[in-house]
Amino acid sequence: MADNNKKMVEQITSMDVDFAQWYTDVVKKAELMDYSSVKGCMIFRPYGYAIWENIQKDLDARFKALGHENVYMPMFIPESLLQREKDHVEGFAPECAWVTIGGENQLSEKLCVRPTSETLFCEHFKNVIHSYRDLPKLYNQWCSVVRWEKTTRPFLRTSEFLWQEGHTMHATAEEARAETRRMLKVYEDFYLESLAIPAITGQKTEKEKFAGAEETYTIEPMMHNGVALQGGTSHYFGDGFAKAFDITYTDADNTVKYPHQTSWGVSTRSIGAIIMTHGDDNGLILPPAIAPIQVVIIPAAQHKPGVLEKATEVKDRLSKYRVKLDDSDQSAGWKFSQYEMKGVPVRLEIGPRDIENNACVLVSRVTREKKFISLDNLEAEVEAMLRQVHDELVDRAAKNLAAKTYEAHNFEEFTDIAEHKPGYIKAMWCGSVECEDKIKDVTGGVKSRCIPFGMEPIDTVCACCGKPAKKLVVWGRQY
Amino acid sequence: MADNNKKMVEQITSMDVDFAQWYTDVVKKAELMDYSSVKGCMIFRPYGYAIWENIQKDLDARFKALGHENVYMPMFIPESLLQREKDHVEGFAPECAWVTIGGENQLSEKLCVRPTSETLFCEHFKNVIHSYRDLPKLYNQWCSVVRWEKTTRPFLRTSEFLWQEGHTMHATAEEARAETRRMLKVYEDFYLESLAIPAITGQKTEKEKFAGAEETYTIEPMMHNGVALQGGTSHYFGDGFAKAFDITYTDADNTVKYPHQTSWGVSTRSIGAIIMTHGDDNGLILPPAIAPIQVVIIPAAQHKPGVLEKATEVKDRLSKYRVKLDDSDQSAGWKFSQYEMKGVPVRLEIGPRDIENNACVLVSRVTREKKFISLDNLEAEVEAMLRQVHDELVDRAAKNLAAKTYEAHNFEEFTDIAEHKPGYIKAMWCGSVECEDKIKDVTGGVKSRCIPFGMEPIDTVCACCGKPAKKLVVWGRQY
Repeated sequence: MADNNKKMVEQITSMDVDFAQWYTDVVKKAELMDYSSVKGCMIFRPYGYAIWENIQKDLDARFKALGHENVYMPMFIPESLLQREKDHVEGFAPECAWVTIGGENQLSEKLCVRPTSETLFCEHFKNVIHSYRDLPKLYNQWCSVVRWEKTTRPFLRTSEFLWQEGHTMHATAEEARAETRRMLKVYEDFYLESLAIPAITGQKTEKEKFAGAEETYTIEPMMHNGVALQGGTSHYFGDGFAKAFDITYTDADNTVKYPHQTSWGVSTRSIGAIIMTHGDDNGLILPPAIAPIQVVIIPAAQHKPGVLEKATEVKDRLSKYRVKLDDSDQSAGWKFSQYEMKGVPVRLEIGPRDIENNACVLVSRVTREKKFISLDNLEAEVEAMLRQVHDELVDRAAKNLAAKTYEAHNFEEFTDIAEHKPGYIKAMWCGSVECEDKIKDVTGGVKSRCIPFGMEPIDTVCACCGKPAKKLVVWGRQY
Repeated sequence: MADNNKKMVEQITSMDVDFAQWYTDVVKKAELMDYSSVKGCMIFRPYGYAIWENIQKDLDARFKALGHENVYMPMFIPESLLQREKDHVEGFAPECAWVTIGGENQLSEKLCVRPTSETLFCEHFKNVIHSYRDLPKLYNQWCSVVRWEKTTRPFLRTSEFLWQEGHTMHATAEEARAETRRMLKVYEDFYLESLAIPAITGQKTEKEKFAGAEETYTIEPMMHNGVALQGGTSHYFGDGFAKAFDITYTDADNTVKYPHQTSWGVSTRSIGAIIMTHGDDNGLILPPAIAPIQVVIIPAAQHKPGVLEKATEVKDRLSKYRVKLDDSDQSAGWKFSQYEMKGVPVRLEIGPRDIENNACVLVSRVTREKKFISLDNLEAEVEAMLRQVHDELVDRAAKNLAAKTYEAHNFEEFTDIAEHKPGYIKAMWCGSVECEDKIKDVTGGVKSRCIPFGMEPIDTVCACCGKPAKKLVVWGRQY
C-alpha cells in the first residue's frame, strides 16, 4: 500500500521545485483537461467540467436571487458592429478570430467570433429599451468566448474559454455604479464562501481597465506562489455604449435619456485559481462547495462479508452530499492516492473492524488528519469535517496572502521586493501611467493589480517617482 | 377589460389563416427571441432561454441517471481533422463556417466552427481509451453549433443553434446498438413526459441517415399543421470512426479491438416543436414541466386592503412550483392576455370576494375552463390542474397525430393525399432510393420520416413502384 501511494505521488513535480510544472501535472493527473489538436483550445474532461458545472450552479443562483435573467446572444459579431465603440474595438480587434467563409462562399463582411458581447447586447438593448418602465435590464449569458492567444496554459490562457458575462442597463449612473459594485461583491462572496479564496478587491487603474469602460473593478486572489490571478471583473460603462448604439429611453418626466450600463464576468480561469490557491504536492484540494465528489468512501477488505453492504448503507445516509463509493478492485493505497490527487475534501474509510465497533474513519484532505468516529454521529461528523476543510482552506489562503504582501516606500525597496519576494507590494502611487510603465519595465512584469478597497495610505509620496501620492496601489505579477 | 383582451389577441395572425405567420407572431409576441444583425443567428430572450434552461435541466438529469458525464470540446475543428471520415466531411463541409484569420494573422490551416463534434470526440477518445477497462465512455456536451443556412426561421432553421450532443464508445457492437436505442427511448420519454408531445419513432432510411452513421434513429413529432419536425436523432456508427481515427483498446483476452460508437442530439428546435404542437390563436401553450412560469397569480382589485397580502400568502404556499404574482398596475384584462400569450399553464385569480369566501379561481390555459376552488384545497387543486393541462396537451397532440396520419396503397392515393391532406402518410416501400427521390420530386418535398417501430405492414407492394415491399415507411413534409 505504501509503495503504491508513493508511486502515484511521484508522478507530480513538487510545487517548490517547479510550480509551473506542478500545475500542469495536477491538471493532467487529476484528469481535469486534455489538449486538443486545435491550437490554444483545450478539452474539459468530465472531472474538470463537473467543477465548472458546480461553479455555474452556484453563481447562477446568486445572479438569479438578485433578479438577473439569462439570455443567449449570437456567437458572431459583424466587423461593423464591433467597430461601433472605438476604445472597445481597439482593445479586442488584435485578438479576434474571424470567420470569412460561410457555406462555401466568401462572406461580404467578416464575422468575429465573440471575444465578449457588449456590442451584441447593445444592439438588442436598442430594440427592447424604450421607456423607463423597461429599466433596469439585468441580463447574463453563459457561453464560450475566443481571444486569440500565442501561448496556452490550461484554464489560465486559452484561445477559447468558458465564462458568464453579465450585461445590465439602468436609468441612472448611480444605479449602474451600484450594480457594478454589487456584482463585484457577489464575486467576492462567491470566491470566499464557495471557492474558499479570500482576495483583495478594488478598482483598476486607467491603464488596466477594460476596453471601453469608464471604471473597472476587480477581485485579485493571490496564488500559493505569490502571483496574482484576476478572478473576476465588473465594469461601469456610463452611457458611452448607449450613445454609440443610440439607445435611449423616455423617462417618467417625458424627456429622452441615455441609459447607463455595466458588464461583469467570471471565467474558467477560476478553476486555475482553485488549483493554485489550495493544491499541494499530493495534487488538487477542492473546496467542498464545488467539489464534484465531497466524500469518497473507501472500504477496507471489501470482499469480507458485510463490508460493502455497510459502506453502501453509509453512502445512503450521506445522500445530501456528493458521495462516491469506490468498490473497484484497485488497492486501498491506490485509491487513497487517486482521490488525494483529485482533491476530494473528505475520505471515509470503513473495514470489518470498524464495522464491529460501529465506527469509521474520516480523513481530511487538507491536514490528512484521521478522525475515528462513531457511526451514530456520521452525518454530523461529515458535515463538521467538510466545514473544517473549508475553514482551513480559507485560513491557509488568508495567511499566504498576508505573509506574501509587502510594503514599499521607495523605488529601491520596491524593486528589491519585486526581485526577491514573490507576492503583492503595497505602495503609494502618483497616478501617472509613466510610473506604472516604469515599474513594469524595471521589474520585468509587475503591474498594478488594483487600488484596493479598505486599505489606509502608507505614505504621502509615490514609491516610484517620489511626487505626491494620490492612491495606495497593490502591485504584483499576474497569470 | 374585454377591449384590452381583444387588442392583445388581434396582434397574432390566426393559425388557420397563415400558420407560418402565426408562428413568427407567437415567437415575437411571447418574447421568446429577437433577430440580430448577424445573418442566420438569433437572440434568445429571457423567456425563450428559460424554456431552454428547463429543457436542459430535464434532459441532463435523464442522461446523468444513466451514467453519462458532461465534457466540453473546442468549438473549432481543423480542416484536416474534419476530413478524417469521408462520408462525414462530405455531409458537413458545404454548411461549415470557416475561421481563416486569428489574431491578425492568416491561419496556415482554416478552422471550421463545429457543426457537430464527432471528430473532436474521436481525437480525444484516442487519448483516453486503451483498455476494455476504459469502456464504455458515456459523454455528453451542451454547446452551440453552426451550420450555414440560407434562410432563417426562429428555432427551426438558424445558422447557430444550441443543443446537446452525446458521444459514447463501447466495447461491442451490441452494446453500442443498445445505447443508440436506449437514448432514442430517453428522447421519446422526454418528449412525452416533459414536452407533452407524443411522436412516431423509428429508423431513418439509408438516404436520410446522418453523414457517417451506419444507422440513424429518429423521433418525429407532428406539428399542429401536419408537418413533421425531426425532434431528436440517435446514431450508431459501428467502428467506422474508430478505424478512421485509429482508436483501439486491448480486450480482457489481450486482443486489440476497435470500439463501437454512438452519438445523439436534441436541439433548440424542440422549442419550435412545443410552439407548433400546442399553441393556439391566443399564443403559446407551455407544458407544465418546462414552463418558466407554471402558475401566474393575478389579483383583482389589488388596491383593496388584504388582497395583495392574500395573493402573496397563496404564492408562498405554492413555492414548490414556478409561480409569478403579477401585481403590476396593468389591467387584469391585459394580464390575462399577456400570460395566455406566454402560454402559462394555470392562471390563478383572486379578489376581495374570493378572499371573503376563502376561495380563488383557477383557469386552464388549454381549455380556458374556470374552476372555483376553496383555498383549503389550494395545493392539491393546483397540482391537479397542472396534471390535467399536461394530460390534455398529450391527448390533443395524439388526436392530431392520429387524425392526420393516412394510408396510401398506390402512387395515385399517395400523391392525392400529399396534395390535399397535410399530415403523415403510411405507405409500403421497396427499399430503393429511386422511389424516395420520385416521391420527393412529384410531391414537391414529401420525404421518408422513418421506418416506424411497432407498426404492422399495410400491404405487400411498394406504394410508389408496385414492386415487392420491404418496409412500412411514414412519409411527410418537414420543417
